Amino acid sequence: MLTTASNIPSEVVTITSAISRDIRFPTSLTKDGSDAMNESGDYSSAYCILSTNSSSGLQGHGMTFTIGRGNDIVCRAIEAVAARIVGRTLQELIQDMGKTWRYLVADSQLRWIGPEKGVIHLALGAVVNAVWDLWAKSVGKPVWRVVADMTPGEFVGCVDWRYLEDAITREEAVQMLQEMEVGKRERVKEAEGSRAVPAYTTSAGYGEDKMKALLEETLAEGYKHFKLKVGGNLEQDMHRLSIAREVLGYDNGNVLMVDANQVWSVPEAIDYMKKLAKFKPWFIEEPTSPDDILGHKAIREALKEDGIEVATGEMCQNRVIFKQLLSSGAIGICQIDACRLGGVNEVMAVLLLAKKFGVPVVPHSGGVGLPEYTQHLSTIDYVCVSGKKSLLEFVDHLHEHFIHPSVIKDGYYTTPTEPGYSVQMKEASMDEFEFPGGAFWQSETARPIRDHLKTDRPI
Amino acid sequence: MLTTASNIPSEVVTITSAISRDIRFPTSLTKDGSDAMNESGDYSSAYCILSTNSSSGLQGHGMTFTIGRGNDIVCRAIEAVAARIVGRTLQELIQDMGKTWRYLVADSQLRWIGPEKGVIHLALGAVVNAVWDLWAKSVGKPVWRVVADMTPGEFVGCVDWRYLEDAITREEAVQMLQEMEVGKRERVKEAEGSRAVPAYTTSAGYGEDKMKALLEETLAEGYKHFKLKVGGNLEQDMHRLSIAREVLGYDNGNVLMVDANQVWSVPEAIDYMKKLAKFKPWFIEEPTSPDDILGHKAIREALKEDGIEVATGEMCQNRVIFKQLLSSGAIGICQIDACRLGGVNEVMAVLLLAKKFGVPVVPHSGGVGLPEYTQHLSTIDYVCVSGKKSLLEFVDHLHEHFIHPSVIKDGYYTTPTEPGYSVQMKEASMDEFEFPGGAFWQSETARPIRDHLKTDRPI
Repeated sequence: MLTTASNIPSEVVTITSAISRDIRFPTSLTKDGSDAMNESGDYSSAYCILSTNSSSGLQGHGMTFTIGRGNDIVCRAIEAVAARIVGRTLQELIQDMGKTWRYLVADSQLRWIGPEKGVIHLALGAVVNAVWDLWAKSVGKPVWRVVADMTPGEFVGCVDWRYLEDAITREEAVQMLQEMEVGKRERVKEAEGSRAVPAYTTSAGYGEDKMKALLEETLAEGYKHFKLKVGGNLEQDMHRLSIAREVLGYDNGNVLMVDANQVWSVPEAIDYMKKLAKFKPWFIEEPTSPDDILGHKAIREALKEDGIEVATGEMCQNRVIFKQLLSSGAIGICQIDACRLGGVNEVMAVLLLAKKFGVPVVPHSGGVGLPEYTQHLSTIDYVCVSGKKSLLEFVDHLHEHFIHPSVIKDGYYTTPTEPGYSVQMKEASMDEFEFPGGAFWQSETARPIRDHLKTDRPI
Repeated sequence: MLTTASNIPSEVVTITSAISRDIRFPTSLTKDGSDAMNESGDYSSAYCILSTNSSSGLQGHGMTFTIGRGNDIVCRAIEAVAARIVGRTLQELIQDMGKTWRYLVADSQLRWIGPEKGVIHLALGAVVNAVWDLWAKSVGKPVWRVVADMTPGEFVGCVDWRYLEDAITREEAVQMLQEMEVGKRERVKEAEGSRAVPAYTTSAGYGEDKMKALLEETLAEGYKHFKLKVGGNLEQDMHRLSIAREVLGYDNGNVLMVDANQVWSVPEAIDYMKKLAKFKPWFIEEPTSPDDILGHKAIREALKEDGIEVATGEMCQNRVIFKQLLSSGAIGICQIDACRLGGVNEVMAVLLLAKKFGVPVVPHSGGVGLPEYTQHLSTIDYVCVSGKKSLLEFVDHLHEHFIHPSVIKDGYYTTPTEPGYSVQMKEASMDEFEFPGGAFWQSETARPIRDHLKTDRPI
């Protein structure tokens, strides 16, 4: 299956061990990243680290993002999934990535506790991404470039086509990608010049003063897109949106988006958004349950006359849900997550579906490590699949822990050039924030979180 | 909220500890319970055991069913969810069961690794069911009777209405239940006489000779409904179905069902079933991904002219998926699972939805402990909700491990009369089959499974 010579590692390496690490940051202390559904998360990474017998110490790092409690459960699932590739060579695994993905997802006993969703699928994402990181490092390329250098046949061969063919066939996908070969070289050049992925910010989700200051600050930095959290309280939200529009104006190309983090029922979502329509939001993100395909469709239809689009995806579990959301016209913006989907392979499937149904892909990036991942995915989408520059969320915290953090310049993501998938964390950060033994978690500062570890709310 | 006096425990008890136990049976050695998707499962129970300060040693036992590897992951999730009710009194918890359920599902950090699906939801099912077991034991009733003794308002109060109101409102549900009060006393009597829940068998899923012998045997025992596994190989399936129809005939009221365990895409399911139509199956179960609402709808519409119904549900993750399957007409038979849904409360929500959309509920019972649970649920459906006797699967193995196993007599489930939810296992069975330390798992007999623990299939 592998025909692109530059994607074939020169050295044969065997995966000799797979471990997980439970890394948690105490974001609940400052309420960074809180919203109407998630009052106080501790942004966390469940890591999968694949070691090899390579003389250069080659390792593959993948992670999945969670918000605290339960990160240990995902770590345990990572160990169960990753154990299945220990002893394999990287060459065996990448020779037919679609087959490898299917192998990892199809352990029938582990599949039962999903299937293809929740903890076991989050774990799959970490493991699959670790394999991609290992592959990319072994050939000295960033992950986006490994994919960009594939033939359409190789790209399509990375996808598990089970359950997709009523919406898109393998042949159709090859055809689509072949058409996109036109201009691809130029798009790669643009990516190399860091003009492939425009950023938007969700830093403006907090208290009114902080929100206003952040909006002004990010506006000055060159951003044109701004997202606010809503759904807690209608009056408060109207007040906040009016402040936001005071800062951004209505007529100067500044785009406002809102995000409800699933707090509404379908009729509630429609009613609430009708009342926010005068602030002209581009889209409402996560108006209701991420499982509710027909609900999103109903909301989108009801809000069409108000010019409000519907976005969702960060909690959508797999390609089968996206297939339905996209093919039925339930969403106008497709927000994939780099690790809730089962890693790069399943993301590639959803990129193809989004292209087929003409829906822009705006990945979810509000979490530790997510921007590091998604900068690759949005680049792949632009270079190989859609040929269109979509937006990508950027949240400016916790990047200091990464060896190769994502960087924004002039409102664009700086395209990653270092080999791998960019989520490898600094050893010192891992040691300090490893839960529960790391220095931070043993410190006095962590006491309020330790004390509330078991429960977050009274009945 | 609690108005039915006989459902109020006389003694105030506090939950003093919550533990999980990982119990696995080596069914993969004999291939019991294998199918086209699940080649060789080890039927397993992840237990939640709630202990109390009651002088009588009152405990609540709940479990969730898995098929082996990964049972430990669910156990860890059970510990995380159950920790949140340690220190609470049973009275606090049952006073407003809807609120308690919402509390257990709404820990925002644990919710992230679902949400409301997969491992964390399977764990929720075990914990919620343990609370129901505790409650029922504390008032000396079987769980079905606790529910049957509720007022319509109390029943509806057990449901978390979030995300449901576009399909059914709380008021509608009360109205429906009030109408069913007529004849309820008579239906309770019927239940007490063990004439509420007719059984069908799926024992006939194996090799041809064994299948034929089992069909003849179960036919002689008075069964009228028989389910066969299909989807492995078309020619073989046609041969097996023709043998089955030789035994059962076409014109004497014997009903044949087939089950594909999700192996097909949507067009494959339609093609395959068109070829099996001449054997007149009543329904095709799990033709495709359990996440594919629109896919099931397409299959059902295509098979209408062949008189074949579509059934699914054993892997459907929560009430939002069932809401869509039912309200859109995607399924003709609703196969709830007692623990994949988040325990009794969420099952009650789906029973109400199924009643509203006129779809019979035929619970999934092919797994250890499931018939013990589902006999209560089908009884509740008959007595309180639908007023119609639906079928309930019975698989005749592993019952010997339960203190109060389910029993079939004259083709009906014998309605449970012992206090609780019937899934408490004998201490000796738990000790012997606890993984990995139990005597069985340390024995030579277990070696083939131990040796293959990490992987089940080569790439």
